[in-house]
Amino acid sequence: MTGPDDRILYGTGSPNVRKVALLLEELGLDYAMKHVAVFSGEQFEPAFLEMNPIAKVPVLTDPAAEEPLFESNAILIYLAETYGPAFLPEAGAARRDVMRWLMVQTALVGPMLGQYNHYHLVVEHGTEPYSAARYRNQSETVYRHLDDRLASREWIAGDVYSIADIATWPWTLYLERHDFVPDDFPNLARWRSQIAERPAAARMTHRVETEYDPRNNRTRRASSQESLDRLFNRKTDGPEADFSLIVRA
Amino acid sequence: MTGPDDRILYGTGSPNVRKVALLLEELGLDYAMKHVAVFSGEQFEPAFLEMNPIAKVPVLTDPAAEEPLFESNAILIYLAETYGPAFLPEAGAARRDVMRWLMVQTALVGPMLGQYNHYHLVVEHGTEPYSAARYRNQSETVYRHLDDRLASREWIAGDVYSIADIATWPWTLYLERHDFVPDDFPNLARWRSQIAERPAAARMTHRVETEYDPRNNRTRRASSQESLDRLFNRKTDGPEADFSLIVRA
Repeated sequence: MTGPDDRILYGTGSPNVRKVALLLEELGLDYAMKHVAVFSGEQFEPAFLEMNPIAKVPVLTDPAAEEPLFESNAILIYLAETYGPAFLPEAGAARRDVMRWLMVQTALVGPMLGQYNHYHLVVEHGTEPYSAARYRNQSETVYRHLDDRLASREWIAGDVYSIADIATWPWTLYLERHDFVPDDFPNLARWRSQIAERPAAARMTHRVETEYDPRNNRTRRASSQESLDRLFNRKTDGPEADFSLIVRA
Repeated sequence: MTGPDDRILYGTGSPNVRKVALLLEELGLDYAMKHVAVFSGEQFEPAFLEMNPIAKVPVLTDPAAEEPLFESNAILIYLAETYGPAFLPEAGAARRDVMRWLMVQTALVGPMLGQYNHYHLVVEHGTEPYSAARYRNQSETVYRHLDDRLASREWIAGDVYSIADIATWPWTLYLERHDFVPDDFPNLARWRSQIAERPAAARMTHRVETEYDPRNNRTRRASSQESLDRLFNRKTDGPEADFSLIVRA
């Protein structure tokens, strides 16, 4: 019998952490949450690097795996293959479809919305107009691809709610913060609501908001320019040092 | 009996296409190559969008799959699961390790080196110093993570040459074009040479250079500002229109 302390999700309130918590909730697995203070550089401490050498959340420890697990979408595949087969079909066209759209999230949705977060929510507005426009366009294209995809399908990979939906959903919650309007993406908006109404999504959101967010907000408000430089991989003697960073709540 | 025309790799000389060709060579599978002229917008034509609605190469058709396959790392997983189990262990810690580092390539190596390609090889130098520095730093961190990883291991996922190596290798060939020096990344350089010496890698490189590159060079040289804008998702009435694009060979 495993207790919740045998499965620990190290994270903060970011989309890549939320997706793992959402799948854990969908699978009905017990887990504890440990906050990693990324704004004060806890991910660069030796104890964390020993779990994940690339210094990113989430990390998951799990009774069925000897080593700490990292890379959010590798964790989703692992959990679905270990505790499924719900959420990741075992073979055939349905499996290919889920894997394909999971990779769209990994290679495109996350990286492009993530870059736009940097230019829209972190770098002071207006300092690099080319890049702000570039990542706004890329983000609009990402949202448009998802809306098109969901025009004729209930779920991203077709008839089955899967890890492709679970991985993508937390990222699409940025739509309004990115100054887009849900009415322009009606299929995406419909799908977002459908997932928000799932009991697992409500439980995940509640736990993130009570167990991670207060700690994260505290360390974010206390973050120095130096800790932001480290978080965003800026050199203090490079041209980027002339641009100030802000962090919109 | 399937002939080479039953398996078609639609692509150009980019790393995401090369990785798929490399795995096809490693598996000893016959395939034909069809060039997609991305610099003149062939990926936005209806016939291509029907194969891949997100308008990216590679696409692979395969006798064992009804639908065209896209997203390079989903294709690697599919090929390894269909024609393996070489290159992707079927279970356990070895499988988790391959999947994890395949996801590092998907989420980090490709996106970050890809952004630096844009700022280093495409946008005219010096116009956005923050972004050029940002993606140079991110790229250096990517190369450093790989070098660190390979310091104590022969292959990225440990003892076995896998799709994690196959996916990552073509991206690391940018090291010199990104103005880094292999001597500063000795473990990465050793691993790069080991893969370059594999007969499958030599065959893949030869085929890309003879079947894709001449066509790609021709359409790249002929590309208009308009077709570059479309390729790089630039709006002609946005602030990005004031920045000219070049394409270094």
